[in-house]
Amino acid sequence: MIVATTLAELRSALAPRRDAPIAVVPTMGALHEGHLSLVTAARARAATVVLTIFVNPTQFTEQADLDAYPRALDDDLAKAGAAGVDVVFAPTAAEMYPTGFATTVSIAGPLTETFEGAVRGRAHFDGVATIVSKLLLAVLADTAYFGQKDAQQVAVVRRLVRDLGIPTEIVVVPTSRDDDGLARSSRNVRLTPADRVRALALPRALAAAARAVADGEQDAAALRAIAAHELDAAGLTPDYLAVVDSDGFAELDRLDRDAVLVVAARVGAVRLLDNVVLAPVTVSSDILDDRPVAAPTGSP
Amino acid sequence: MIVATTLAELRSALAPRRDAPIAVVPTMGALHEGHLSLVTAARARAATVVLTIFVNPTQFTEQADLDAYPRALDDDLAKAGAAGVDVVFAPTAAEMYPTGFATTVSIAGPLTETFEGAVRGRAHFDGVATIVSKLLLAVLADTAYFGQKDAQQVAVVRRLVRDLGIPTEIVVVPTSRDDDGLARSSRNVRLTPADRVRALALPRALAAAARAVADGEQDAAALRAIAAHELDAAGLTPDYLAVVDSDGFAELDRLDRDAVLVVAARVGAVRLLDNVVLAPVTVSSDILDDRPVAAPTGSP
Repeated sequence: MIVATTLAELRSALAPRRDAPIAVVPTMGALHEGHLSLVTAARARAATVVLTIFVNPTQFTEQADLDAYPRALDDDLAKAGAAGVDVVFAPTAAEMYPTGFATTVSIAGPLTETFEGAVRGRAHFDGVATIVSKLLLAVLADTAYFGQKDAQQVAVVRRLVRDLGIPTEIVVVPTSRDDDGLARSSRNVRLTPADRVRALALPRALAAAARAVADGEQDAAALRAIAAHELDAAGLTPDYLAVVDSDGFAELDRLDRDAVLVVAARVGAVRLLDNVVLAPVTVSSDILDDRPVAAPTGSP
Repeated sequence: MIVATTLAELRSALAPRRDAPIAVVPTMGALHEGHLSLVTAARARAATVVLTIFVNPTQFTEQADLDAYPRALDDDLAKAGAAGVDVVFAPTAAEMYPTGFATTVSIAGPLTETFEGAVRGRAHFDGVATIVSKLLLAVLADTAYFGQKDAQQVAVVRRLVRDLGIPTEIVVVPTSRDDDGLARSSRNVRLTPADRVRALALPRALAAAARAVADGEQDAAALRAIAAHELDAAGLTPDYLAVVDSDGFAELDRLDRDAVLVVAARVGAVRLLDNVVLAPVTVSSDILDDRPVAAPTGSP
């Protein structure tokens, strides 16, 4: 496995590999099985898998969160090697943001201004969009793998790739969960055992809403109430809990398009995110048969 | 010559040509000999020359300027064909900015906030940076050709390409001038004969300053005064007239690094830009000999 720490080393490592598909898995390190599920998905479609490890300072809007973010490079390299990663790109902040750096990639609108954008501030998704643009352009992979766990980030990445025409296909991999249902996150290591139990109310709330959808519930307020009940019972007050459209993160009243139920809550010292994809309700043939029938032209 | 109007057509046209060097010349059409000098430079280094024609609405901060911008697609295609362009990319605004488009590439600091950024407003260089990013990523050429005439735009493009890591080398071609010295510009067609004569004060002012530099003048205020005298004599009041560093467009007091004397002035109905590159003054051995000599260590 090649470990590149500069853009020049990365380019040299990839130059002889460009005749076959390349995949990239952008991460902030502190690798867990969720990241490794992205590597597994990437390996299935690419001859070369690049894993980037960069704790991007510009997307942290609280210094304390940046300082507390777990870092474990040696451990990460061992895990990446075992998972079959071919090239790790682990640059310094000075390599990614040299003196004179002045460019920001921004996405306007509800997608970046609501939910995580509202809680963390405008700079968060500017930081995400800028670093993802830089990493995708540095690797110029055929495919890039992101986890559904960070649903709003996924939507931001898909938006910027489409808007700027970055020549990499974005592949979204379902959220990886521990056996108890908790979405895997590098931040989970900071949960106390008691908080970890409380945190299970998040996947429970999402599962309850998904079951209600399967049973025919289409009303967003009703779905929120079902999920809120589970959080309440565990004493959790969410930062937000909303049914949004998957692309633009506009809040929905009904499940009339691709939607996601998103939740964020602080559990002890840790802020956790989770979400569940809610398929739009398929219009059944019964309903189609109930449509008013237009009078045939020419009929008496 | 292939004329592509959609990104998909452009990709198809370029796919079979990617085994040899590709060059791109981004333009807003209304082609003149200045653009064709970029094509000539591009042809010297590339097997395939792509010329893009797109009057980018987002970089116009005045609707009247956008409306008045000359458009001559048939004429442009004839000129491009005669100049040996292989592929013209002439998309519609809807192709470049489809519904839902929400991404902006911005460069912070004096580079985009001063001079053209101050006169035209912040949105101007955001529009330039975003469309140039999109066009460069659409073509993914080895080299891209820009004219020195729009010096601040050149600096913005070089900054964003470096910052984002867009894999295209930016080549800057000296300003193309008519026989009388006027910098070629698509806007020149809107000058009345009398205004065209008055406009010659711009290249005269720049040439006077360049002569003064050749004669040893290094003081920015003195150079500005020399140029201002020529503009004054023609009754022109510049929007700005300044000696700036070529990369960051910070105003300089002395020619102590790569510098440009930039000028913008309204002549009749038309706003004209021009500039001259001023090489930094080489420190002569005489001057070096005048430096205070440190007492040798160990001397009495």
